[in-house]
Amino acid sequence: MKIALDVMGGDNAPKSNIDGAIEAIKELNVEIILLGDSAQIQEIMPKDEAVSSKMTVVHCDETITFDEKPVKAVRTKKKSSIVVGLNMLKNNEVDAFVSAGSTGAILAGGLFVVGRIKGIDRPALTGVFPNENGGSLIMDVGANADCKPKNLDEFAMMGSIYAQNILGRKNPKVALVNIGSEEGKGNELYKTAFELMKANADYNFVGNIEAREIPTSNVDVIVCDGFTGNIIIKLTEGIASRFFDMLKKVMFENIKTKFAALMLKKSLYNMKKELDADEQGGVPLLGIDGIIIKAHGSSKAKAIKNAIKQAVKFHDSNSLTTIKDYAKKHVNNDII
Amino acid sequence: MKIALDVMGGDNAPKSNIDGAIEAIKELNVEIILLGDSAQIQEIMPKDEAVSSKMTVVHCDETITFDEKPVKAVRTKKKSSIVVGLNMLKNNEVDAFVSAGSTGAILAGGLFVVGRIKGIDRPALTGVFPNENGGSLIMDVGANADCKPKNLDEFAMMGSIYAQNILGRKNPKVALVNIGSEEGKGNELYKTAFELMKANADYNFVGNIEAREIPTSNVDVIVCDGFTGNIIIKLTEGIASRFFDMLKKVMFENIKTKFAALMLKKSLYNMKKELDADEQGGVPLLGIDGIIIKAHGSSKAKAIKNAIKQAVKFHDSNSLTTIKDYAKKHVNNDII
Repeated sequence: MKIALDVMGGDNAPKSNIDGAIEAIKELNVEIILLGDSAQIQEIMPKDEAVSSKMTVVHCDETITFDEKPVKAVRTKKKSSIVVGLNMLKNNEVDAFVSAGSTGAILAGGLFVVGRIKGIDRPALTGVFPNENGGSLIMDVGANADCKPKNLDEFAMMGSIYAQNILGRKNPKVALVNIGSEEGKGNELYKTAFELMKANADYNFVGNIEAREIPTSNVDVIVCDGFTGNIIIKLTEGIASRFFDMLKKVMFENIKTKFAALMLKKSLYNMKKELDADEQGGVPLLGIDGIIIKAHGSSKAKAIKNAIKQAVKFHDSNSLTTIKDYAKKHVNNDII
Repeated sequence: MKIALDVMGGDNAPKSNIDGAIEAIKELNVEIILLGDSAQIQEIMPKDEAVSSKMTVVHCDETITFDEKPVKAVRTKKKSSIVVGLNMLKNNEVDAFVSAGSTGAILAGGLFVVGRIKGIDRPALTGVFPNENGGSLIMDVGANADCKPKNLDEFAMMGSIYAQNILGRKNPKVALVNIGSEEGKGNELYKTAFELMKANADYNFVGNIEAREIPTSNVDVIVCDGFTGNIIIKLTEGIASRFFDMLKKVMFENIKTKFAALMLKKSLYNMKKELDADEQGGVPLLGIDGIIIKAHGSSKAKAIKNAIKQAVKFHDSNSLTTIKDYAKKHVNNDII
């Protein structure tokens, strides 16, 4: 299997990205195309022939940064690692594209360069909400600020396929974010989406989930519009960060608390790790006609390797075909 | 000033509610009408003549519980403490109504019994997001699942008046929740609301606020639709609760951590208190033609007293008239 890796994307690029590729090659049966500045890449390339023989460098002149306007960047920077990689995916030169770069640019590129799956109205950006049950997929987390009920139904189906095939969840539980747990709650969008989801026998819809329950739920896929999903993911980051800042302040209050902090150090570190999005590897862009895995911007080598591993699982499970078949069936249903 | 207090509402009713009323009478220049089961109230009534002379009991046969459908409950339970209290407010027999009871019922009753301020399209339920800067008002947190841009502009104005007059904030900063900080971000509702808010010179609009920034912001009023606001408030509760559960687990891991926990106990308690909504007193229902303060369901005596105090400040500051004047001006503008 051939994977195109954006070596320039993310806070720790290119070093961590290349290290992640090396780890992936040692562990998995993959060939990796490294996309980025060849001079920088050559400096880090491994000496080990067994590894380097499975790596190909494709020089890219340009890089899209996090602060650029995504659509404009994708349209003008044709030689950037993101656009080059997505073109390779489009032309079947690789089986998947992995990047820790600008989410907006990857999404815009996914849409303009690779294109949607026929029958899927809007692709979704997936997030992972960390919890004790291995995390819940949450989608959409920002690809679609305005959604129609149909979109939420499609997110549910795609998320269910991904949770089952790639995350190994059996008969994944799918819930709809809402402001009450009973049927009939919510705004117009969510009321209608509930009806569609309830009527859809192709996945296991378990009803509404209130935001209060998200951190402790055992639901596999949490469905919402991209505006709401983005708020949920970012608020969670903000609160977690504030909480650890407060905790730090408490720990450094005086000699006694400093001593206590020392004794708790390891356990608190584990706690922080459980809440950390970086540990989750990457998230897929679902609804695009190709395998795209977005790794977190702060990814280190391990996270990049995990993102590559997810691309392999995605590919081997044939999930893209499953989603396409579902979409085809849906389109036919819509016509009938 | 006369205040109607729902003695039956909240988890600690009627004892804490009556204790809160006693504290309020000792501290403030108020007369309090206690609404509820007179037999239960008489058992708890204070012996102190100076206090009891400022209390009047109005017996109410019925109580609306948290699990009842709000609209139906308000329509059928005419003798409940909530409906009786709101009728007294409507008929100017009292200057304000305070309750720790069902939010939905208070809102429904506010609308059906007391009614909207002329010119205000939709009243808002206000929440408080706890932070280091004394908390930010957040509105709407659930009164309106579907909003129009105009509603958000009205929430902003009413929140600004409340923050200035009752919370004592100077030239209150008003922000719009959004999925990006730049202008032009968001869904259609938020894009148009931004335009209206930017053009409104009657309050100090400081632009978009991303959810990540909410826990540490120094913004006084955070504006959003009721669906989004409800998600924000409930998710925050859920995460805070999960975090303290995790922390507890860490603390009880072994002898060493238990010892550390003992040394941190007081500081952690203060930290929890800072995040606790109960400490904030009550929140107003803005846009209703009367002063209604909703105290948290878990209110103890101090919180009830603080809610009464807020009602007094609301009354003394003449803020209802300020909101009415603003609404009148707006209606005229709309006609022109």
